[in-house]
Amino acid sequence: MEFKGADILSAKQFNRGDVETVLKTAARALQYASKKKWSDILKNKLLASLFFEPSTRTRLSFETAMIRLGGSVVNSVGTQTSSLSKGETLLDTGRVIEKYADVIVMRYSQENSAEELARGAAVPVINAGDGSNEHPTQALTDLFTIQQELGSIDGLKVAMVGDLKYGRTVHSLSYMLSHFDVEMTFVSPETLKMPEHICRSLKEKNVKFKETFDMGEALREANVLYMTRIQKERFEKEKEYEKVKNSYILTREMIEQKNPKLLIMHPLPRIAEIAQDVDDLQGAAYFRQVANGLAVRMALLTMVLGKTL
Amino acid sequence: MEFKGADILSAKQFNRGDVETVLKTAARALQYASKKKWSDILKNKLLASLFFEPSTRTRLSFETAMIRLGGSVVNSVGTQTSSLSKGETLLDTGRVIEKYADVIVMRYSQENSAEELARGAAVPVINAGDGSNEHPTQALTDLFTIQQELGSIDGLKVAMVGDLKYGRTVHSLSYMLSHFDVEMTFVSPETLKMPEHICRSLKEKNVKFKETFDMGEALREANVLYMTRIQKERFEKEKEYEKVKNSYILTREMIEQKNPKLLIMHPLPRIAEIAQDVDDLQGAAYFRQVANGLAVRMALLTMVLGKTL
Amino acid sequence: MEFKGADILSAKQFNRGDVETVLKTAARALQYASKKKWSDILKNKLLASLFFEPSTRTRLSFETAMIRLGGSVVNSVGTQTSSLSKGETLLDTGRVIEKYADVIVMRYSQENSAEELARGAAVPVINAGDGSNEHPTQALTDLFTIQQELGSIDGLKVAMVGDLKYGRTVHSLSYMLSHFDVEMTFVSPETLKMPEHICRSLKEKNVKFKETFDMGEALREANVLYMTRIQKERFEKEKEYEKVKNSYILTREMIEQKNPKLLIMHPLPRIAEIAQDVDDLQGAAYFRQVANGLAVRMALLTMVLGKTL
Repeated sequence: MEFKGADILSAKQFNRGDVETVLKTAARALQYASKKKWSDILKNKLLASLFFEPSTRTRLSFETAMIRLGGSVVNSVGTQTSSLSKGETLLDTGRVIEKYADVIVMRYSQENSAEELARGAAVPVINAGDGSNEHPTQALTDLFTIQQELGSIDGLKVAMVGDLKYGRTVHSLSYMLSHFDVEMTFVSPETLKMPEHICRSLKEKNVKFKETFDMGEALREANVLYMTRIQKERFEKEKEYEKVKNSYILTREMIEQKNPKLLIMHPLPRIAEIAQDVDDLQGAAYFRQVANGLAVRMALLTMVLGKTL
Repeated sequence: MEFKGADILSAKQFNRGDVETVLKTAARALQYASKKKWSDILKNKLLASLFFEPSTRTRLSFETAMIRLGGSVVNSVGTQTSSLSKGETLLDTGRVIEKYADVIVMRYSQENSAEELARGAAVPVINAGDGSNEHPTQALTDLFTIQQELGSIDGLKVAMVGDLKYGRTVHSLSYMLSHFDVEMTFVSPETLKMPEHICRSLKEKNVKFKETFDMGEALREANVLYMTRIQKERFEKEKEYEKVKNSYILTREMIEQKNPKLLIMHPLPRIAEIAQDVDDLQGAAYFRQVANGLAVRMALLTMVLGKTL
Repeated sequence: MEFKGADILSAKQFNRGDVETVLKTAARALQYASKKKWSDILKNKLLASLFFEPSTRTRLSFETAMIRLGGSVVNSVGTQTSSLSKGETLLDTGRVIEKYADVIVMRYSQENSAEELARGAAVPVINAGDGSNEHPTQALTDLFTIQQELGSIDGLKVAMVGDLKYGRTVHSLSYMLSHFDVEMTFVSPETLKMPEHICRSLKEKNVKFKETFDMGEALREANVLYMTRIQKERFEKEKEYEKVKNSYILTREMIEQKNPKLLIMHPLPRIAEIAQDVDDLQGAAYFRQVANGLAVRMALLTMVLGKTL
């Protein structure tokens, strides 16, 4: 992929070489992401940060990335303060915002919304989450974290746990991982299984994966355990939710007994699905993921803006 | 008008010379508005961007203008997060915000609200829309667009279509146009006619205008067609709204048959009142208006802050 | 107190020397707060401004302070757009935001919330109001204002009027004042008296104070009258509220008759508790307080970031 001027809309755009290019650039960005240095490489560049769906973490990650590289930011949060609430199409929104900004980041509740905005905008658009569809910059952050923590991605067993049906981060992550020599295990309740179109796509590429309800078994075999939140709203009956919720809580005891070297990741926010006493295990990487996300977003912003970090 | 230190509250403040001064400065600002260059003329100046009423486009236009000229921005969006919701007067708000900022831009739902804020604030205040009253910077944007697209404003026939009663942009535009040698046609349903006080003021100045319900006729004669959105909320009966809505939809066929050279403008957001296939006609200027709006706001910000672009 | 790297969570942290250090630094910051000069001492420093509870004035005060000293800002306003609404703990929020920012300012509706955030964040956290508990930077602003207006704090009689039970500014102010040789008078309705734990703490330190319902008497004796807003929501019966509200309205006549030299302060927003014709009395310092608050916040931000103004 030619990154300069590109829209970053889906994990599916990336081949293995593209992923590796991003990870290499992110590694160079770490000195800025870790707050050791400040750059001015994006001076005189303006990011429009449009978060029509609530998010503090991802939005601040992009805005911080832009600012720490010397760039500027304008933003809009929520739909009620926007032209969209008056009935404007995303295509028109794109045509307007491109007049202001050099690059646009958008989160919106509807699938493929970033694509529609990008059709209107001549400047690069980065998808920061479109409903339960995709979240490609989070997937790149996850791969970067695995590489940083374990040295490489090839040869690993990666288990993903929780809401695999609506969890956009695991969708994007599965696509990205499929370019590497990995085995995936999808751990979820029956009603929240990985969508069929993703499983089919993995099969076509001969990627090894299995599905299970049993977190304990997956935990024992995996090198990486990727936890996600299970949302109450996804269940018709509260009772069913309570049952499921309690089966997917990761405790310190489980890790120490079954797999002390396990790398534990989570896209955050974490609620109860990882017990707090897991946090100071060496393998608990989920807060380190945050700084890695900053580095990955710094890498993407500079690349689509045609700069070299 | 002495622009340095001035409040920009109403189109009525501007005489022809004032308008021409703004348009000349806006023309020089276009190189920055078009993203070709970045300036630092407003370095060490801070804009407080107070949008108590929803708006993405206008707010980001002002903030982008400030930032691309090297200035800084603090902002507040919505009333629920403000002291106004606790009962503070706008006069007091002005007295507080002037301590922080070098210039204030405000949108608020009540008529003459910018004026009240300006009474409290020693720094320049720019009205970005006060209820259905005025929106002077949009009117200047519209005049600048006409001039950029057609070379001059004098001698033109300008038709305004849609909700002329509550549409603050057409109110401010009518005042501004009255300084030029133009003929205006006001096209609206009976219930949404241009307010009497505006018509009276035009008559006093011997400005030629007529009122009609028939968009087709206006379309044929006009050099400029200024479309606006008709809002459902303005009608008591949904049926009446549906009838009116459908009479004021501009299609590609209408333009190609009746007036292919027509300049088509719209303050945006556009909903259904301009069909999407109009967008790539040469006369469709509404997205070019956006960049022009940036230039006009750059001009006003520098002028009230006493700088020369 | 060693300020570099410190969290500013409570007025109780400050001894007299600490307060004096802040006031001295604030005096040097006044040239920047008064908009005469612009500094770049906080260049390459990023403030995360997290206002989960509504506030325009305090938030813009911190953000303006940061920007006018050359620093940068990312912010988040309201809870509905944050991970907290998804159930994240403040501890986790702290662990995330510290990856982005060099200093964090937070307002939140719950007592001791800033403390919990600070436990997660390795960077300095400044409490900008935690429920009805504390608001230490406002108290420092108040002391700075008294010093600027009257030359010194020692030897003064300070009356606080209004909602002393839920008013976090008067809580923090009482603690701070207790290090000085002052006499305090607490004027409030029976149901909104100063909390017992604060009175007890003052007694232990042998600070002279008295409690009364009579604003008139307090007014006559005081050097400083600190007014606060009485909120309707604090009363069970509207009738009771109306009675109380009217007993605590400060008028120009009262001041001119009883104590023309009185210094009048208010944390703002002011609703009806100070009549508008008081505003142009020489002693009416509440709008000057705003610029002083900017200077105090400039002082604190530079100090916790290890810089010297």
